[in-house]
Amino acid sequence: MPKLLAKYDVIIIGAGPAGYVSAVRCGQLGLKTACIDSLSDKFGRPSLGGAYLNAGCVASMALLESAKLYHALTVDLAQHGIRAENIALDVGQMIRRKDRIVAEINSHIAGLFSHHKIDHIHARARLLQAGHVEVVPVDGGAPSCLIADHIILATGSAPLELPFAPIDHEYIIDTSDALNLDSVPKRLAIIGAGIKGLEIASIWNRLGSEVILLEAQESFLNLPDQQISREAYAIFTGQGMEMRLGARVISAKKGNQEVMIKYQDHEGSHALSVDRLIVAIGRKPSSEGLAAPEADLLLDDSGYVHVDENCRTNLPGVYAIGDLTLLGPMLAHKGIEEGVFVAEQIAGLQSMINYDLLPSVVYTEPEIAWVGQTEQTLRGLGEPLKIGVFPFSASSRALAIGRSEGLVKIIAHAETDRILGVHMIGAGASELIAEAVLAMEFSASSEDLARTIHAHPTLSEALYEGALALRKMALHLPMGK
Amino acid sequence: MPKLLAKYDVIIIGAGPAGYVSAVRCGQLGLKTACIDSLSDKFGRPSLGGAYLNAGCVASMALLESAKLYHALTVDLAQHGIRAENIALDVGQMIRRKDRIVAEINSHIAGLFSHHKIDHIHARARLLQAGHVEVVPVDGGAPSCLIADHIILATGSAPLELPFAPIDHEYIIDTSDALNLDSVPKRLAIIGAGIKGLEIASIWNRLGSEVILLEAQESFLNLPDQQISREAYAIFTGQGMEMRLGARVISAKKGNQEVMIKYQDHEGSHALSVDRLIVAIGRKPSSEGLAAPEADLLLDDSGYVHVDENCRTNLPGVYAIGDLTLLGPMLAHKGIEEGVFVAEQIAGLQSMINYDLLPSVVYTEPEIAWVGQTEQTLRGLGEPLKIGVFPFSASSRALAIGRSEGLVKIIAHAETDRILGVHMIGAGASELIAEAVLAMEFSASSEDLARTIHAHPTLSEALYEGALALRKMALHLPMGK
Repeated sequence: MPKLLAKYDVIIIGAGPAGYVSAVRCGQLGLKTACIDSLSDKFGRPSLGGAYLNAGCVASMALLESAKLYHALTVDLAQHGIRAENIALDVGQMIRRKDRIVAEINSHIAGLFSHHKIDHIHARARLLQAGHVEVVPVDGGAPSCLIADHIILATGSAPLELPFAPIDHEYIIDTSDALNLDSVPKRLAIIGAGIKGLEIASIWNRLGSEVILLEAQESFLNLPDQQISREAYAIFTGQGMEMRLGARVISAKKGNQEVMIKYQDHEGSHALSVDRLIVAIGRKPSSEGLAAPEADLLLDDSGYVHVDENCRTNLPGVYAIGDLTLLGPMLAHKGIEEGVFVAEQIAGLQSMINYDLLPSVVYTEPEIAWVGQTEQTLRGLGEPLKIGVFPFSASSRALAIGRSEGLVKIIAHAETDRILGVHMIGAGASELIAEAVLAMEFSASSEDLARTIHAHPTLSEALYEGALALRKMALHLPMGK
Repeated sequence: MPKLLAKYDVIIIGAGPAGYVSAVRCGQLGLKTACIDSLSDKFGRPSLGGAYLNAGCVASMALLESAKLYHALTVDLAQHGIRAENIALDVGQMIRRKDRIVAEINSHIAGLFSHHKIDHIHARARLLQAGHVEVVPVDGGAPSCLIADHIILATGSAPLELPFAPIDHEYIIDTSDALNLDSVPKRLAIIGAGIKGLEIASIWNRLGSEVILLEAQESFLNLPDQQISREAYAIFTGQGMEMRLGARVISAKKGNQEVMIKYQDHEGSHALSVDRLIVAIGRKPSSEGLAAPEADLLLDDSGYVHVDENCRTNLPGVYAIGDLTLLGPMLAHKGIEEGVFVAEQIAGLQSMINYDLLPSVVYTEPEIAWVGQTEQTLRGLGEPLKIGVFPFSASSRALAIGRSEGLVKIIAHAETDRILGVHMIGAGASELIAEAVLAMEFSASSEDLARTIHAHPTLSEALYEGALALRKMALHLPMGK
């Protein structure tokens, strides 16, 4: 065993959103805390925030913002009475803006660590046994061992790979490479029309790529309410994305400046040639090598760390949070809440997480968001339902800002009127969902929502109108919808 | 008395948001309803939606959307890696886009009337006595009289004028003309740095005007919490708006292609020459000629219709809603709620409005929104407070979309933790306020907000972080703010 260096109250392995937030809360609660993370930026410096910040939602959102502006320039200008000539794109600069924003948030996190007196250790870490962590500095220093009463595993997840479409990071790329292309591919294929695939598709579609999504499932977007999925399908294909459902990729190979893909669907075999191929089939927990074999950390067959409802692993004083576990979906805010929850547990405070009210968000253009259960699940359970739907095409604000696609759907229990699910696609959905989560936290009835004053004109009125529509009293729905 | 034409359950005078929504709800509740309105579009056709739609928030928002796009082109492009040359503005087309959106919403409202079997009468109306309305068709037809058990007055408001700065609709213009200029004024002065003045300033500032706001008050924006007002002052002046506080205009006259303004402040007298002057000093209720003198409708000295807490005037079966009354501020959604409230009262239903939880929104860029009470008012009442502030500069999403200005402030009772006010300035404030209103409708504590999961990264997290900041537990606040 390497020499013993220091003792902490808490050691956190991983500085993604789950890990760094947990470290912050530990620091706030007076616990002596270290957070160990091996991620480096392109200059070899420590880069806090994990894959999530550096190659996930924030990076993706920064690029999408540029892509939306470019798209507005190429498509919407004339109607606004604005003219511009010789519109051109410098993808390198667009990526540098994204990198600058990511670096700014990296340094915010470093500032949080410093303020809360959290030791940040730029190293690879391995759990040796309960209480003991082996640390191998990224800069090549000697390995050492740290001890702590509590250890929180928060190494997150990494893209799943396909053996028959091996990533070369140049032509066949992963979702992280997809945020660092040096030019706009003319033809871009994406394996997987799930959340990540669609988010990346939104970016490059807005920048002018011809985007083809190859989805092995026969149905499109199974997680959200199916009415939202149908609307999403119509909107995204209307934007020019090509969806090939039931398409099972058999092989993908780099040819001469292109990628040749073979896939099968119910019509037979197909060949497809594109400039770049992105593999976006999901993520796997980053648990490989996380613990020494003799530590006996319990993982399942897919590599998820086994935890109880309090995020405790099978080892005393060892917790796992975020994407490493199956306790809830792979969402940044799930990890964040678990980070807080475990820190508060360790400090002896009362804490809880309501996994039933975790909002889901897809950062496409337009966005998709939901909380609670879908109509399909509830019908399957035999619940008597009342449903209210309000399309943004009937919203004054949506019309004023030229964003009238999408809808809000509110599902309540037919007898108690309690809201059981809220689902939406449209401009600002990621923000509007917050009100729905709060409503459900208060076990609100749809009438509660319908009796709460909403500013006019706003997009948030769609929730109010949806709740009114549920009782056939929507104010702005013609045709008795 | 003119000949009697038809009898209704309800006659509504005015088809602005209060009036048309009231008509819709009356129709939904099975009441035979007529809505009389005299507004015409530039082709002489009836134009539903009132000043609000045609010359107020929706029109203003449509223009602001164009102005934001133009501003992004002229300022933000380079950082996004987008180039464009010869950027030019066709204000006529920009105004036509706004007019097209307004016309679309006009026709939505006409569709609602038709669907709910509401008679829309394009006429000037005058209350003769309880139950009787005189109708003078806009197209010059013969006057007639309609009778109804219930009459709802909803004629709204009109811009206040200044005798020493008479509106000529060309150089010295009102807030409605300000949305129909045919070019971008090089120098634009606005009398009144209130909500409407700032909204208009936001549009023309983004389009390149040099904007000078002349405000008679010594302090800036008295309605919101003063921390928000200070932030707004810093942001707007940072955008190049010039604020002259304590500036009392003495005269404004058209000169040779310009407007010459004289004003006084504590330093003395000043002269100012601008290309256009907008008078934006507030609005007055449109009650002149609304009722025949013998009807004895009770008005106050400023022309507001006197109502009780149920929107009932002094005449039996006659109600007044929206901007006509002093029962709450001049806000579209106040009128909408009152329209619904009165319709439900007439139909014999239980209904209520919580005037304490009317959100206020200023559609500037960035937006300002608040609900509940300000710190200043609460301190004046001697309430023990806890306050949490979260700046958007610490929000990942705000950074990713390049909108890190502004903050959210949450005020709770120090002992009960009940939220007493939520105030914000920043991107999307008009939408984020909805969650705060709902929280306060449920008498939420700030801890309720702090324990509700917010999607990451979103702007709505600023509410969550504000609630955490109040207990010194914000996750993303360095420097222990």
